[in-house]
Parts: sequence; structure tokens; C-alpha cells
Amino acid sequence: MAKKFVYFFGNGKADGHGDMKDLLGGKGAGLAEMTNAGVPVPPGFTITTEVCNIYSESGRKLPKEVEKEIDDNLAKLEKAMGKKLGDVKDPLLVSVRSGAKFSMPGMMDTVLNLGLNDETIQGLIAKSGNERFAWDAYRRFIQMFGNVVMDVDKANFEHIIDATKDKRGIKLDVDMTVADLKDLVAQFKKKVKALTKKDFPQDPHAQLRMAEEAVFQSWNNPRAITYRRLNDIPGNLGTAVNVQAMVFGNMGDTSATGVGFTRNPATGDKEFYGEYLTNAQGEDVVAGIRTPHPIADLAKEMPKVYKQLRDITGRLEKHYRDVQDFEFTVQENVLFMLQTRTGKRTAQAAIKIAVDMVKEKLISKEEAILRVEPNQLDQLLHPIIDPKAKKTVIAQGLKASPGAAVGKAVFTADDAVTEAQKGKVILVRTETNPDDIHGMDAAAGILTARGGMTSHAAVVARGMGTPCVAGCESLRVSEKDRKFTAGNVTVKEGDWISIDGSTGEVMLGQMPTIEPAVTGDFGTLMSWADAARRLKVRANADIPRDAIVARQFGAEGIGLCRTEHMFFAEDRLPIVQEMILADSVGARQKALEKLLPMQRSDFEGLFTEMKGYPVTIRLLDPPLHEFLPKREELMVELATMKALKKGATPKAKKLEKLLARVEELHEFNPMLGHRGCRLGIVYPEITRMQARAIFEAAALLAKKKIKVIPEVMIPLVGTVKEFSNQKKLVVEMADAVMAENKVKIEYMVGTMIELPRAALVADTIAKEAEFFSFGTNDLTQTTFGFSRDDAGKFITYYMENGIFEKDPFVALDQEGVGQLVKMGVERGRSTREKLKVGICGEHGGEPSSVEFCHRTGLDYVSCSPYRVPIARMAAAHAAIKQSGKVKASQTK
Amino acid sequence: MAKKFVYFFGNGKADGHGDMKDLLGGKGAGLAEMTNAGVPVPPGFTITTEVCNIYSESGRKLPKEVEKEIDDNLAKLEKAMGKKLGDVKDPLLVSVRSGAKFSMPGMMDTVLNLGLNDETIQGLIAKSGNERFAWDAYRRFIQMFGNVVMDVDKANFEHIIDATKDKRGIKLDVDMTVADLKDLVAQFKKKVKALTKKDFPQDPHAQLRMAEEAVFQSWNNPRAITYRRLNDIPGNLGTAVNVQAMVFGNMGDTSATGVGFTRNPATGDKEFYGEYLTNAQGEDVVAGIRTPHPIADLAKEMPKVYKQLRDITGRLEKHYRDVQDFEFTVQENVLFMLQTRTGKRTAQAAIKIAVDMVKEKLISKEEAILRVEPNQLDQLLHPIIDPKAKKTVIAQGLKASPGAAVGKAVFTADDAVTEAQKGKVILVRTETNPDDIHGMDAAAGILTARGGMTSHAAVVARGMGTPCVAGCESLRVSEKDRKFTAGNVTVKEGDWISIDGSTGEVMLGQMPTIEPAVTGDFGTLMSWADAARRLKVRANADIPRDAIVARQFGAEGIGLCRTEHMFFAEDRLPIVQEMILADSVGARQKALEKLLPMQRSDFEGLFTEMKGYPVTIRLLDPPLHEFLPKREELMVELATMKALKKGATPKAKKLEKLLARVEELHEFNPMLGHRGCRLGIVYPEITRMQARAIFEAAALLAKKKIKVIPEVMIPLVGTVKEFSNQKKLVVEMADAVMAENKVKIEYMVGTMIELPRAALVADTIAKEAEFFSFGTNDLTQTTFGFSRDDAGKFITYYMENGIFEKDPFVALDQEGVGQLVKMGVERGRSTREKLKVGICGEHGGEPSSVEFCHRTGLDYVSCSPYRVPIARMAAAHAAIKQSGKVKASQTK
Repeated sequence: MAKKFVYFFGNGKADGHGDMKDLLGGKGAGLAEMTNAGVPVPPGFTITTEVCNIYSESGRKLPKEVEKEIDDNLAKLEKAMGKKLGDVKDPLLVSVRSGAKFSMPGMMDTVLNLGLNDETIQGLIAKSGNERFAWDAYRRFIQMFGNVVMDVDKANFEHIIDATKDKRGIKLDVDMTVADLKDLVAQFKKKVKALTKKDFPQDPHAQLRMAEEAVFQSWNNPRAITYRRLNDIPGNLGTAVNVQAMVFGNMGDTSATGVGFTRNPATGDKEFYGEYLTNAQGEDVVAGIRTPHPIADLAKEMPKVYKQLRDITGRLEKHYRDVQDFEFTVQENVLFMLQTRTGKRTAQAAIKIAVDMVKEKLISKEEAILRVEPNQLDQLLHPIIDPKAKKTVIAQGLKASPGAAVGKAVFTADDAVTEAQKGKVILVRTETNPDDIHGMDAAAGILTARGGMTSHAAVVARGMGTPCVAGCESLRVSEKDRKFTAGNVTVKEGDWISIDGSTGEVMLGQMPTIEPAVTGDFGTLMSWADAARRLKVRANADIPRDAIVARQFGAEGIGLCRTEHMFFAEDRLPIVQEMILADSVGARQKALEKLLPMQRSDFEGLFTEMKGYPVTIRLLDPPLHEFLPKREELMVELATMKALKKGATPKAKKLEKLLARVEELHEFNPMLGHRGCRLGIVYPEITRMQARAIFEAAALLAKKKIKVIPEVMIPLVGTVKEFSNQKKLVVEMADAVMAENKVKIEYMVGTMIELPRAALVADTIAKEAEFFSFGTNDLTQTTFGFSRDDAGKFITYYMENGIFEKDPFVALDQEGVGQLVKMGVERGRSTREKLKVGICGEHGGEPSSVEFCHRTGLDYVSCSPYRVPIARMAAAHAAIKQSGKVKASQTK
Repeated sequence: MAKKFVYFFGNGKADGHGDMKDLLGGKGAGLAEMTNAGVPVPPGFTITTEVCNIYSESGRKLPKEVEKEIDDNLAKLEKAMGKKLGDVKDPLLVSVRSGAKFSMPGMMDTVLNLGLNDETIQGLIAKSGNERFAWDAYRRFIQMFGNVVMDVDKANFEHIIDATKDKRGIKLDVDMTVADLKDLVAQFKKKVKALTKKDFPQDPHAQLRMAEEAVFQSWNNPRAITYRRLNDIPGNLGTAVNVQAMVFGNMGDTSATGVGFTRNPATGDKEFYGEYLTNAQGEDVVAGIRTPHPIADLAKEMPKVYKQLRDITGRLEKHYRDVQDFEFTVQENVLFMLQTRTGKRTAQAAIKIAVDMVKEKLISKEEAILRVEPNQLDQLLHPIIDPKAKKTVIAQGLKASPGAAVGKAVFTADDAVTEAQKGKVILVRTETNPDDIHGMDAAAGILTARGGMTSHAAVVARGMGTPCVAGCESLRVSEKDRKFTAGNVTVKEGDWISIDGSTGEVMLGQMPTIEPAVTGDFGTLMSWADAARRLKVRANADIPRDAIVARQFGAEGIGLCRTEHMFFAEDRLPIVQEMILADSVGARQKALEKLLPMQRSDFEGLFTEMKGYPVTIRLLDPPLHEFLPKREELMVELATMKALKKGATPKAKKLEKLLARVEELHEFNPMLGHRGCRLGIVYPEITRMQARAIFEAAALLAKKKIKVIPEVMIPLVGTVKEFSNQKKLVVEMADAVMAENKVKIEYMVGTMIELPRAALVADTIAKEAEFFSFGTNDLTQTTFGFSRDDAGKFITYYMENGIFEKDPFVALDQEGVGQLVKMGVERGRSTREKLKVGICGEHGGEPSSVEFCHRTGLDYVSCSPYRVPIARMAAAHAAIKQSGKVKASQTK
């Protein structure tokens, strides 16, 4: 059988069905499924995602057989509708929409009312008996087609509309007359010709082909690429094209268009939820140009339609066993469903819906867990505004994306990116559009004056987990002057404001925030997740304060305590420097003795917070010069003194001596220098001091009958001999301290696996090491051969140009670095069966990496305290997916 | 059967035999073999190398069963000699010598005359009837035992001897009287007591035990460790201890001691060769204190002994099928053989001997090849002094190690190390000793005033391949004053001198040198090697001059041409900087256009020299900031100008602008930064320019009907997408240039494999890449996670403390990095069966690495032009060893 490239739907029957998202995209599969389920859907056909890839790969050409299939399906559609594309008496009008496997709101392009031209409009007028509607449809078509297909900036059309309304002294689009609209069409066509040097195409078949190709091309526009990158969507999926007979929500007051959710997507409450506009086309609702009515109003305005809509969407929720996000149009009192898909929701809503649906026996606990994307929890794990704090609320908007954010006001996306490098910013805009994506990503919070709960700002912010207050109508925002007013308050660029996406409030100044907690439905779901997962979750914590947060978020130990953190403390740095500048072992020893009680008390604090849990302590890792003043600064200071003829002063002499030592320690590539266990090997007295501090702290607690399990971790090991050298020092010190204190301490000595060589020879290292912890930050750096600090120079370019799908410092590179992790685990366990294995790079809190760790048989992951619940959830996802308890089609 | 720890030899029969070098060491195996062959050898026993390891591992203790075996063998020895250790009437005296598997001349310690004390000396006097001899033996024993076993510095004894001779007004040891010697013994014992707080041991059995243990301990003394490191001898072999009945060469004029070779070890000539001293003990010959007589003189002095010696050594050469290095002692006209072993020889001698022995049908061609250590050839591959040059010869010494060297005179080993960092040095010493090893390693040449062909300086220099003139008796060297005189010429520290180790000449000034050639026996042997090897050998060459040398040395192509070499040329650097500082693609393009003709002419030159052979050209690799002035220097310059209130001058402004760009390009870890293909990806115009230069040069030659095979190599690839990105640019440019010039050029596009990730995903990369070249320098750096520039801070420590056996930048780390190479080859060929694979790191010229490359199935190695013959020879060794044509025992 030849391959099928086009799938028809209509008349209660579809070629495809709901499970065909890969091929038909989410929208196309939904349309097919709804059609099959007897839901009223305007007929049409879907060109598959495969065609998109063929189109791209063949240099933007459609194969003959695809063209023929499209023509056949168009004929079928014309037959179903009893209208013909381009028929001057009764023209078929169609919409052309993109639809990828995963929803990419606002990212892809859509054309409505296609099929209109200077002749067919007469047929539309005749058939609809509504001249104003027809001209409005035509001018919208030219606007959309001109923008999407012919690449004319939207602003060109908007300026013409604004000028027309100004001239006529009216404010709303609906107040424009037939004459106004006719005039707009003429002006639009002239503008298109002027800008593109081409006439606006009058042949409806050419229009259709051009629109289809534009959709395919839009798959690779920069907005789409950025969105995919931010949302981890692969670039090779392609988009489908949906060509569908038009129905019109803008045929007067008996027509309407709207969007909705079967449950509240912000809170998760079980309430019918949505917005609509009468006498409007779909784009008007989403675009945020007019503020729409709550869907409850529809019950009064069109009670029969409302009942039918609730009935259909209720059936759809049961059918799909999940919240539905739907689009509908009412054309002269007749309801049409245009789309249904799984509704995006906030983390809070996702949790409530998942827990509720288990209670409603709609889904299992495992399914409930899979309904909450681990990364989404991040939204619930950030500070909220202290309810006891005195607030100066200057405006109230929609609760578009929950969570509190505090930052300096900025007014353009570019400014947001720049200023965010210095501190937190709130991006304030009249309304956002897809071109603002990079600024929204950089901002701590987003505030808009216009647009509803489904506006661009709201949808994108929720997706990103960024707090957002939208549709804050009392705001007057001037992007040009970099300020906004709310009542009589003016906020200028750089002024501090706070927003609360959970209440919709906008406040002046820096509000105090408090930490979130894992309680209520969240707590319930996490307890299910804990029951489902195999992987333990630990936190990276250097100080007791971090350990407390880690415990609150459910960490089951500390996977990485970086002892150098403690060396940088203000009161210690001079002693550390004394140690480094020591010119004999004796002098170094003396400085180390001063450090010993400080380190001991650090460990005592950590052990106390983590009582009963293991605490992995990594011995000193960074090169010593990191603790000294910067070489080039000393050089400049000294050169300046010499230029001023002060080169012979005692201060200069001292500086010179310091510089000499700094020069001695200077490294061309500190990342690849004298660091990690290489320090402890050349300066065994440092290892001895640190080991003593660890075991003395443990002994102190042991005497208080508090159990602690120190796991001493040797960093940057590349050969077993390096490890054995350091292990010997640690074990000797443990024996000595236990004898001195007459206590027994349970402890382990293990190593970081953070160099390719360590993974390659893991079998020999595991003969000596009692545990492994993969340091995937350094392992990524050495495996790829680029340093995190320097890769910025090209990694952005790599992401934008498709050389990298994901930043390997964010998501573990499973193809390359992952091989070394797998090798390390397998080889390590080949010589030490019970080898404990964890990961403590930043990947330990990234869901796809956590899933990899589960599959690879690690015992635990360790991540930043705030990401512990995300890791717990990701670990549960991994276990459930592996168990096969939930069908694959239900996992995304 | 219980394990045997001690092997007896004597009375024509030995427990062991010549193949037991692992267990008995070279010396012990030789003694056993000689004994079995009926050669007159003083009886004795060998304590095995295993005991050495047991001794070290058990904290310097000997197991009971070993002690018992030693006692049993001592009893056997006493019986064979009819004397007893410690017998006051007729004492048995023994020598205690170390003997490892591989000879380590001067590195290990020896004690002679053991068994003497204040009482047994009377027995020795009585039995020998020679009081002077007996007291001389006793004082020697205290000297050696005091130094080797009790750790008293030799100089202490020498001072006492010198004082005695001064007092008596005599010059030679032999002029000392019995009274003098008795007095020496008394003074020596006093000195030992004063320095060690212990009496000199009088119990001969205790002496023996102490000496045995001292030999074991000497295995891990710093000299031995250094020697092993320099000679690639593993540290876990251990040394055997040989306890052997003493025979005396110092019993008057009918006694003698000597060493010799069955062929000339410097030239390879088939002549009986050696040196001896009458009335002396063995150490006197080797130590270089008295200049010995050529062995030919023995024919006149002791014709019978001489004939017997020639007969025995001739038999030994035939027996071992190789040149023998032997030690003998004549005690009152009776010949004893003390040792025989394979003779070390210069490269030149090794080649001549190997070729001669094939002609003599003693060995096969394959064996002949294996007789020449590839690294040894290095000696023949260095410049020699131009024979046409006018020489000012100021002294003539022994031709101790061939080759010419030119350098500044230095007089201590430490100075040699320091000064060698600035330029070439000649180390000038009265005589060298094992403490000078590090200086000898650093020096370009070695010149000594005393010592023969088997003196420490000569033996070590030959081993290192360093030119050496030894025993240059007219020299008066003052290490203290840092100068030497030769006749009326004085040479001070820092003065230029030249030495020729092939002629023994010492010359004033910097003599012109010329390149060596592969001709004569060398050429013959290399032709055999070429026939035996599978691996091709290419050279790393950036400029035509290097390519010429490479071809002369038999390179079969260029494996690595580093294009940045060309960028650093004086006339180009300003243009390269112009390109880097360009603030637009247009400006960069303009600079690149200026570079194009220069690069093209470079490649034209290379292609012309390498006509018919492949030339692998690596695209630009280093980060761009390497071509700009150093950041800290600019900062200092600017700070100085500002301090002098010149911060507003145009020069300062210009500097500031330059610094800003340098800051922009600054990297924390340049090795892991924006370099390699990452440059060509972000700046495709650079790749395009380089590709155009390559193909335009190839096209020019193609028009002249000269065939060239450019292999364009993309550096630092970690993912296949990086490679494809660059390959596309190269292929497009090749197509364009071929079309413009209407020629067809055969070419390939391949990649360096120099990152762990590249090796891990080699299967996907090989789908696109037509060849791989392992860049093992960078691969070593990233696999171990240390940079070559910075590792110096700990790598020496690692080597000295046994954490590394070998420097992984010198010999490929087969255990770790080697795994990635193997993986890269296997995975690469899994998707492209005919993938061409080579190596172009510096390991490409290191024999053990070349052997690894052969075993791993690489197609070629590429190394520095001067190492090409070494690589060819190593490749032949690898192939012959793998073929199994030569017995393993004959391969080392």
C-alpha cells in the first residue's frame, strides 16, 4: 500500500484517530477523534508531519503524489460542504493551521478565511446576506495571509486600521462600517504590493498552496526554534497542516467564538472555565486585543449552545481522561468544536486535578503522578509573598501564572535579558507577543496590561513557571518612555516592584517573600511519588541552612558538601591564604591547625541537621590560586606603583612577593590544573586536616548518641593509585580519631567519577572505592572538551543552529557523557557488586537526567535543595514508565 | 612443592638457568647459565626478585622460610669453598650484588669483601700471605658497607684517604702501605661510629643480612626510581640479590680485574673490546678513578689468561647469539668470570652488529630488527658536525656516546636543568655519578675528564642517546669555579662549546652541524623493517622544510599540517589580528582575502614536496586570542600609562580598544574554549578561506600534472553535527574551486578524534567522516582532565611517588586513553568499514605507543620528521612480535 500523506475528517467519520499525534499533530489527531466521536466539527483534512520533513529535506518542494492527495481531499471537502474553492457564487472558505505533536501556543502560524478574493467575496456576501461580515472576513484574510505567508509586518496593517478609526473617530473594530472595511481591503492590497512587489494572490488554489507551505516553513522560524529549545521538543518532529472548512463567529450577535477548559487551569478547581467573544473570530480571543467575557455569561446569552458545549466537553474529558482545552465557534446559533487537546495547567492545578481525578476514580495513582511534569513543580518551590507583610497594591490583574516575583521593572524584552544579568527583573508590557520570548525567559516575573487568561503572556508564563499578572487593565504602559502608571503612581525603569501571580496583585517595592512547603494535595501526590520511586534523592548542601531546606523538601541525605565553600568565608580566607603562602610544611601545618576547629564545627552543624542520614563530604577541590588575589590585578597594582616610583616601598615589596607566589600557582587551564585529589596528594597535610575535622565532628555527635554516616569523597580521581593514596590518609585519620575518642564511627571512603578516565577504569577504582558519585558537571566538561565558563562563546550559537538540541550542562548528554556514566556503573559493580552509586552534578535535579539515572541503575541522585521535590517526582516518573503500569500513550 | 626462594650455582651446576631473568635477575640468570656451561664462575647463590617484593610489601621483613633457605645455601657455599663465613682461620668472603631483570648500571648497590672483621682479617692474612691485600680489602669493605648499608656519604671516606695520601706525599692508592691501610681501617670505623652512633658490625652473619636487606631497599632509592622512569622499567619487578664467593683481582701483579664486550659497543665493529686493571678490584674499573688499560694489553701481560678469556667469551656470544658484556677477575693467574649479559650498545653499534649477525647467519632478519630498540635510533637522527667546517679542537677524549652536540658549558647537574630551559647546554664534569642523572637528562651533551668507555657518564649517556665525550684527560675541571681548562684555553660557564661523541673531539664555539642520513647498514636494516611492518608512517610537518626532512627519513605522507603555524609568521600576524579585530563579517572577509594567497602558497609548497603522497591539513585550531597580545601585558601597559596621566592619549585609547577585544576573547580555560571546529562553525568564512587555499593550491599542481591528495581535517569535533557543518563548507568550496579551474582533485574530509566524546560516538561521526586521526595529546588531556601546560605542578611528584609509571604525555596511556582509541577505531569502522585511521599526537613517534597503534589496527602513525625512522622501526617490531616469528625471550 502506498504511503498516506493526507487524512480526511468530516461527516462523522475520520481517516485518522486520536492516537496518531506523531503523524497528524495534536490538533489533527484531536479533530479526527472528535469527528469519530460524533462531535460537531467542521470537515477538513490533515497533511501529515512527514510531509513537513519531506518538504524541508527536499529543499522546499512537495512531491507530486502529495500534491495529488491534497487535491483529492480538497475535492472531498468541497463535496462535503457543497461549496467549491474559488466559486464566485458560493465559495468554500478554509482555515489553514499548523499542528505539531506537542502544542506550541503562539509559535506557529495560522491563516483564516482563505479562498476570498475580489470575486468570491461577492458570493460570500450573497450567500451570507451579510456584507459587513464578508468584508471584515476579507480584510482579516489579507492581514493574516499578508503577514504569515507574504512576510509583511503586522504593524503595517494595524497602522492603517488605527488611521481609519482615528479618521472616523471610533474606537472599536466592530464600529467600522462596510465602507471602512472595503477601504481597508483596498489599502491592505496596496500596502502588500508596495512592500512585496507582488500582487496579493487572487487565485484561491494558489492561496492554499502558499499557505500550506508557509505553515511548513514556520516550523523552522526562530520563534518556533526558541520555543522548542525552552520546552525540550525535538526539532525533527515537523508540523502537520490542517485545512478545514471555515465557520464564522463573526456573523453577528448570534455568532461567537471562544476557548475554554473543563477545569480551572490555574487552580485546578473543578469548574467550567473559559472565555468568549460574540461576533468575533477566534484570533480575537487569544490575541488579547479585546478582553473577553467569562464563559458563564454564555449560559445567559446562548443557553442552548452553552448546554450543548458543556455536554460535549464533559464527554471529551471523560473520553480523554484528562482536562480538555477546547476551542469553539458558534455560527448563527450553531455550535462547532474547532479543537480539543489536553489542557496545559499550572503546577498547582496539575496537582489538584491529578489528586481529584484519583478520588473520582478516573485515573490511577501512577497516572496521577505522570500527569505532573516534574519540572513544573518548580513553580511551587519558589518563595511566595509573606502574607503578614504590609502591601502597597497599586493594581490588580488576572492570576495568570502563580508565584510571587520581585524585581526591577523593565519594559522591553532586550532590556530584560540585559538587566537580568545584574539582578531580578519584572518584564512589564502592554501585551506580549512571540517576539518577546527571550525577555520572558530572562524575567523573574511578567506583568501585562492587556490580554486574558489565555493570552500569549499567560500561556507562555505558565509554561515557563514564571509568575505572571496579565490583563491588568488599570496600567498605562509606555514602552518608549520606559515607565508605567497605575492610577496616580508612576513606576519607572529600574524601580522595584513585586507581583503575585497567585493573587493578581501588583505591589510597589521589594516585598518580603517566604519559602513554600510541600503540603495538602502537593504532599499527597509527593507521598504517592515516594512510594513509586526506587531512586533515593539527596541534596547538595554546604552549610546547615541549606541542609534544613533540603530536609524540608524531603532530601534523604547530602550527596555533595563542597568543603571549599567554607574556605571562602570571610573569617577563614586569610587563614587559607596563610596556608597557601606557607613556605614550609611546618608553616602550612600551623595554618591548617587554625582551620581545623572551624571545619569541625561546619561538619558538626551539617551532621546535626542530617542526623541518621548519610552526608557525603568532598575534600578540597579547587586549585589553590582561587583563594588568592587575582594575578592580573596584582600586576596592575604593582605596575602602577612602579610608574609612580613607589616600587621600592615595603608595600610594593610585599606585593611583589605575593605576586611571585601567585605566578608560581598560576595555571593556563585551572579547570585542568592542580586541583582535586592532586592537591591532597602533593599536600597530604590538607587531606589529613579535613579528615580529622570530619571524624572529630562525627565523634562529638557519636558521644551525644547521634548517629551520623560520613561518606568521605575524593575528588577528580583518574587512576586507582590516586584514590588509594588519599584513602590511606583518610582511613589512618579515622582510626586515630576513633581511638582518641573511644568511639566507633560508621563511614565510607569513595570517589567522584568526573573524568573520562575514571569511568573507563572504574573496575579497578571500585576495588578500592566504596562508593561512586558522578560529578557530571566536570564529566561533561572533559568529555566534550569545553569548560562551562568559556562555552558561552559558542554554545548559544550551537543551540540556535541546531548543533545542540539541548544544553549539555542542563540536561545530561545521554548519547556521549551518558555512555561514560553507564560504563562507570557497570564496570564499578563488576568488581564491587554492592557499590553505592550516585550523581551530584547539577543534572541530578533535571528530570530527563534523573530518568537516565534510574534506568542506569544508580542508587541516588543529589541536587540543589530547591529541586529535591522535582527529583523525587522525576524518579517516580522514571520508575512508573519503566514498570509499564501506564500505557505509553498516557505518559505525555 | 614449596616455593623456592634461593638458587645455588657452583661446581659446574646451577639450580637455575639463563631463561629465569624474571626470578633471578639478569646477573643471577647469567651466573647460573655460565655455571651450567662450564665457565669458571665463583660459586654462590641468588635470592629471587620475589623475595624483594615480599620484603617491601611486608614492611621490610623476611619470612622465616626464606631465612632458612638462605642459611642452607650459605652452608652449601661454605662447603663448596671449604671455608666458613666468620672463620678466623680461613674466612669465606663474599660479594653481595643486586641484579634486576633489566640492567641498571650504577643504579643499584654492591658490597664486596663481606665477612671481614677485626679477627677474620688475620685468617685472610695468613691464608693469602699478603697483608697489604688483606688490609686493602678490609678498608674497601668498610667503605662500601659503610656507604651502601649504613648510609654514610662516600666523601667521608675519600677525605680520609686524601688526607692520608697528602700526609704521606703519595698520589696513587697502590702506593699506600700496610700501615696506611691499617690506619684507614681504624679511622673509617671511628667515622662510621661518629656518624651513625653504631659500631661497625663485626658479626659476618649480621653483615650478610644487613647487606642483603640494603640491596632490597636500594630497589626503591631515588636514583633507581629515576633510572627506571627514564628507561621505562616497571617498578614492580624487584631485584634479586647475588651472594657469591669473593675472588680477588687485587692480590698483586698476577691478579687483575676487567670488563669487556665481545664486539665494540660504540661502533659495532667485530673486535674484542674491553678494559682492565691489574692489582685492582672490579669497582676501580667502572668507577673511573684510574684509567684502565685496553684489553689487548692483556694478551701481552697474561697471554694464557687472555686466550682463555677470548675462548670463553666467544663461546658465550655464540651461546646467547648476541654481543656479551662480561666482567672477569684474575686471581693469581686464575681466570674467573663474574658476569655476562647482553651488551648495551650505541644505536650505530646495534645496527652494525644486527646486520653483521644476519650476514654471519647467527640471527634472522626479524631478530636483527628486534635487536635495535627503536628509541635508540634517535642517536643517529640528530645533526652531526659539518666535516667541512673549520674546527678549533681543544681536547680529545673517548668516543663515549656518538653524535654531535653544541651548547653552553655548565658545571653542575642543577645548572644543567635550569639553563637547559633557555637553550642547549653541555654538562662538563670531572666525572659523573648517579646523583647527576637529572642534569645528564637535561643536557644536549656530556663531557667528562675522567672515566673510560664503561664509566658512569659513558654508560648513561649511551642509554639516553646523548652525545658524550668521556675520559678527556687533558681537561682540568673546576666545578666550584664553574670553568675548565684544556691546555692554555679556559672555558667558563656560559661559553659555547661543541663536542662530537663520534670522534671524541671537544671544540670551541658553536660548530655548524648537518643532518644525518639513513644510509649504509642503517639503510639496510630500515629496508628490512619496512618490509616487516604493516603500519604506514607519516610525519607532522607544517612547512616545506619539515616536509623535505620527513621525506628523507622515509615519511609516507604528512599526517598533520597545523595551519596556525603559518598564521604566526611575522608578515602574517598583523593580518590575522586584523581579521580577529574586525567588527563585521565584511571586514573579516577582507582580512581573510589577504591571507588567502599566503596560505595557498604554503600548501603549494607542501604539496610539491609531498607529491603523490597524502597531506593531512588541519583547519585552524587555537583560540583566536592566542594571536593577540597578552591580556595582562596590555592591562599593565595601560595601568602604567594611566598612572603617568597618559590615559587620554590616542595611544592609550587605541590600547584600551584592543584590550576590550582581548577581554571579550579572554578564556578561563583556553584549552577548553572557543577553538577547533568551534571557530569554523561560528566564523564559517575562516573555514571557507582555508578550504579555498587548499584546493586552489591543489588545482595549481593538478594543472602541472602533479598529483596531490589533500585530506582536510576538522579539529576538535565532539558531535557529528559539528563535523557535517564544516564538511559541507569544505565540499562546497572544493566543488567551486574544481569548477573554476576545470580540474578534478582527489580529496578527503575527515576529523581529529581528540575528545572523549568523539571516540564514544565514533560510529555516528564515521558515517560522515572519511578518515580519523587520533589527536592523542588533547585526548590525553581531556581523558585525564589535566592540561600539559599545568600538569608539571604534580606530574613529577606522581612519577617519583609511583602514582604514574610513565608520563602519559610521552607514552600513550593504554589502560585509559587507549580504551578510547580502541573504541574509536572499532566504532568508526562499524559504520564505515574502510575508514582510514591514524594518529598524529606526539605518541606517534614513541615505540610503545606505535606498537599499541599496530595492535589496535590503525593504518598509520604520524610523528615529528626526526622520529620517522624510529616509528618505522617500532612498527616493524610490533608486526614481528605479533607475528610470533621470533621467540618472546629473544625480544628483550
